[in-house]
Amino acid sequence: MNPVLEHLCAHRSERDFSARPVDDETLAAVFEATRRAPTWNNAQNVSWVTVRDPRTKAALARCSGNQAWIERAPVFVVLLMDFHKTELAAGRHGRRQLVLDNVNSVLIGALDTGILMGTMMAAARAAGLGVCPIGGVRRGMDEAIELLRLPRLVAPLAGVCLGYPHAASKVRKPRMALEASWHPEAYDRERVAEAIDAMDADMDGYSRGLGREGAQNWSDAVSSRYAADAYGGVGPALRRQGFCFEWEEGV
Amino acid sequence: MNPVLEHLCAHRSERDFSARPVDDETLAAVFEATRRAPTWNNAQNVSWVTVRDPRTKAALARCSGNQAWIERAPVFVVLLMDFHKTELAAGRHGRRQLVLDNVNSVLIGALDTGILMGTMMAAARAAGLGVCPIGGVRRGMDEAIELLRLPRLVAPLAGVCLGYPHAASKVRKPRMALEASWHPEAYDRERVAEAIDAMDADMDGYSRGLGREGAQNWSDAVSSRYAADAYGGVGPALRRQGFCFEWEEGV
Repeated sequence: MNPVLEHLCAHRSERDFSARPVDDETLAAVFEATRRAPTWNNAQNVSWVTVRDPRTKAALARCSGNQAWIERAPVFVVLLMDFHKTELAAGRHGRRQLVLDNVNSVLIGALDTGILMGTMMAAARAAGLGVCPIGGVRRGMDEAIELLRLPRLVAPLAGVCLGYPHAASKVRKPRMALEASWHPEAYDRERVAEAIDAMDADMDGYSRGLGREGAQNWSDAVSSRYAADAYGGVGPALRRQGFCFEWEEGV
Repeated sequence: MNPVLEHLCAHRSERDFSARPVDDETLAAVFEATRRAPTWNNAQNVSWVTVRDPRTKAALARCSGNQAWIERAPVFVVLLMDFHKTELAAGRHGRRQLVLDNVNSVLIGALDTGILMGTMMAAARAAGLGVCPIGGVRRGMDEAIELLRLPRLVAPLAGVCLGYPHAASKVRKPRMALEASWHPEAYDRERVAEAIDAMDADMDGYSRGLGREGAQNWSDAVSSRYAADAYGGVGPALRRQGFCFEWEEGV
């Protein structure tokens, strides 16, 4: 198999980082690949803060829902959607970023942050690092904005723990069958319904393999998480940062 | 340099596809890597439709803002945020996806779609294909939803043209300096302001290299695009598909 495809297929998350530091040269190589990924209109509405300070990492670990591996990782990267760059560009030409009044702005920012985040994780693993993606950084969005001193039009969307793992994790979480995601010509609901039974069974096997008897299967785990919502602060925080997502219009 | 890092750094977009078809085995290898990328809570709220039908491609090219390379590419992939999967999971356990009432749902969907899209593009290039990312698929979101027969809680966020280029593009679009995106410990506005002059100069040089004298520089081009908004249909289309993004609350 092509080594790049093999590398991409081998993604796994690491949470058990050693104290071995990550030097700036390694980060620079990873971020050079990140920077080369494409963005909407080449507008580059993505930035990231690298956090090494133990106090900041501890605060971010707490406000991300007590995720201890954020503290344990020598570097925690917080990925930002960043319309401050294009605000400066608009200022040079006396223009207004009308695009910000529409939920499409949040889609631009989040999609491009995701493209760069996927690239960053693949690059970091290629540089010998372990990675763990963190969505919980949005859980305490206000606090993260303050800790990282983010200006208006910049918001933290996700994080990546970076470091050298003690021992590379041997297990990979199961995924739904390819047929549940890849639809030829039009969306086919049947493919999705069929895949959930298999996914639940795979997740049971995975949990047993880790000695976690009685763990929730996939549909139970994901639906119980999605039936709760600890992210009520996200909307207000985004609005305070200058994102409108058509708030003022009628339905 | 590490060959995977080199591969990731070498991203460029291709728009001049030959008629050579892309077989399903090649797509399956690309999509296997895509499927292995991580998602929020392993919830896998991402799917994609592959379009080969010339009429559907022509319709999508038109409603994406007349992007002819969508028609020319033998395969056009439309990436979807997909909460239909987790809706079925919730139904199995008598739960409601409360998460959908919050703009965070749209961030989950768009970020994860971006992560998988970045992985898909890197994988496709590794398989010898050329790629061109398409954000304009949201421009005619309603029409794309109908063409691809998307159920409730599924929405098209972006596309990727896939095919074998006539001749690989030799140029790469400039990017802002790494310092404009990589902030140690806290966001530093100075770094961003300084990078824009360099970016404008680089873009001028790039345009001249292509024989496009008098083309807009970066800040002019991006700010003129962002001063207009052809994406007013995105919010209403997302609401019709079942996404609320805190619409009903007061500010």
